[in-house]
Amino acid sequence: MSSARRIPVLEIFGPTVQGEGMVVGRKTMFVRTAGCDYQCSWCDSAFTWDGSGKDDIRLLSAAEVIGELERAGGQAFDHVTVSGGNPALLPQLGGLIDGLHERGIQVALETQGSRWQPWFTAIDDLTLSPKPPSSGMETNWDVLDDIVARLQAAGSRFCLKVVVFDDADLAYARMVHARYPLVPFYAQAGNGNLTETEPAKMLPYLVERYEWLIGQIMADNSLRSVHVLPQLHTWVWGNKKGV
Amino acid sequence: MSSARRIPVLEIFGPTVQGEGMVVGRKTMFVRTAGCDYQCSWCDSAFTWDGSGKDDIRLLSAAEVIGELERAGGQAFDHVTVSGGNPALLPQLGGLIDGLHERGIQVALETQGSRWQPWFTAIDDLTLSPKPPSSGMETNWDVLDDIVARLQAAGSRFCLKVVVFDDADLAYARMVHARYPLVPFYAQAGNGNLTETEPAKMLPYLVERYEWLIGQIMADNSLRSVHVLPQLHTWVWGNKKGV
Repeated sequence: MSSARRIPVLEIFGPTVQGEGMVVGRKTMFVRTAGCDYQCSWCDSAFTWDGSGKDDIRLLSAAEVIGELERAGGQAFDHVTVSGGNPALLPQLGGLIDGLHERGIQVALETQGSRWQPWFTAIDDLTLSPKPPSSGMETNWDVLDDIVARLQAAGSRFCLKVVVFDDADLAYARMVHARYPLVPFYAQAGNGNLTETEPAKMLPYLVERYEWLIGQIMADNSLRSVHVLPQLHTWVWGNKKGV
Repeated sequence: MSSARRIPVLEIFGPTVQGEGMVVGRKTMFVRTAGCDYQCSWCDSAFTWDGSGKDDIRLLSAAEVIGELERAGGQAFDHVTVSGGNPALLPQLGGLIDGLHERGIQVALETQGSRWQPWFTAIDDLTLSPKPPSSGMETNWDVLDDIVARLQAAGSRFCLKVVVFDDADLAYARMVHARYPLVPFYAQAGNGNLTETEPAKMLPYLVERYEWLIGQIMADNSLRSVHVLPQLHTWVWGNKKGV
């Protein structure tokens, strides 16, 4: 197999619970791919793109990824979440998705929506998470419009998720929801404390940020058909990796 | 209108977030009906059936319920959750559900699955939550089998949710999931601390119970296609009512 068809993998772990978004609470395995076209100021997985995880990247075939998932998860799982980085940079993920489906395993995937891949329509739970102003990134609306239109045409099950830290992010969330009113919309409280590993010490902060976001959105007539969620895994495990 | 067609209502509040189950995080209004055919040992809404809330019950028409929802929620909501007690004791809820749908409002409802109502198939997000051994209640499997079969035949969107406090409850959860393997399944960490109103004081306990349940289920080959969730509202507001 040429290295171009191999998948740059940084982490394979689980089973654990999905901590956020449209399948929050779902028992799942995680595959984290390396590489990102964004560099969000508050990225909780910066090791996927800032060079610090470079030596941990392994180039694996789809069969090797599935083999590692089966070794780690045994018979205890039927759902795999692919995250990054931005896994939408990898055209070769189609083979992994097909291989998992052949084994009766569902696949969730999260991407910022900056790049289309034909395998998007094969994903069971696809999350598009365009990044708000606090990230320092700029959304390419033409690309996002095109992705949303293609997914809607295909009848895909997908959602939009926006992380919210402040009022500017909230205005961005309103704008995204107004632009794609028929797409299920998730607002997620941002985690501005990325170094604390003792969950008990950051829990009051995370609860406060979630309660703030709830308060903002409950009174808002322009955000009606929405979900508001925290990152549940940070409430339990803080910023610990691999859980 | 005869009083038999009126709805016994204990609480109308919101908008707030749905704290549990299949639409966790959803911005919603709540209508809590009075009366229950169960008396679960750990019920968090015992005032709906133990007589303590008797003087607060109001008999309202569907139009009056909708009027109160609109006064409380203004234009900020498009989703209503009906809870109890057991709202499945009330055949007259069909009119409320139709009235909400006519206004473009979605309806979620939770019941233990001890009684069928024809309007079940009109509910957008229906949760059947049969009660595990720790509740002190006994499941009527013939009734539950019949309800699940009817909902499946109608193509309804519904889930099963089991609250888990201990190993016996976990065995019950396994049994429910094995009996209805195609129905989306939610395991929910039980809250055994129903008097504390200061969330910060009960948060460590709730996190510990959630983490215990995650640990039990992650290793379990018979619980694969499942969600594991806490009651998010208790993490934010403790046992406070009306939020």
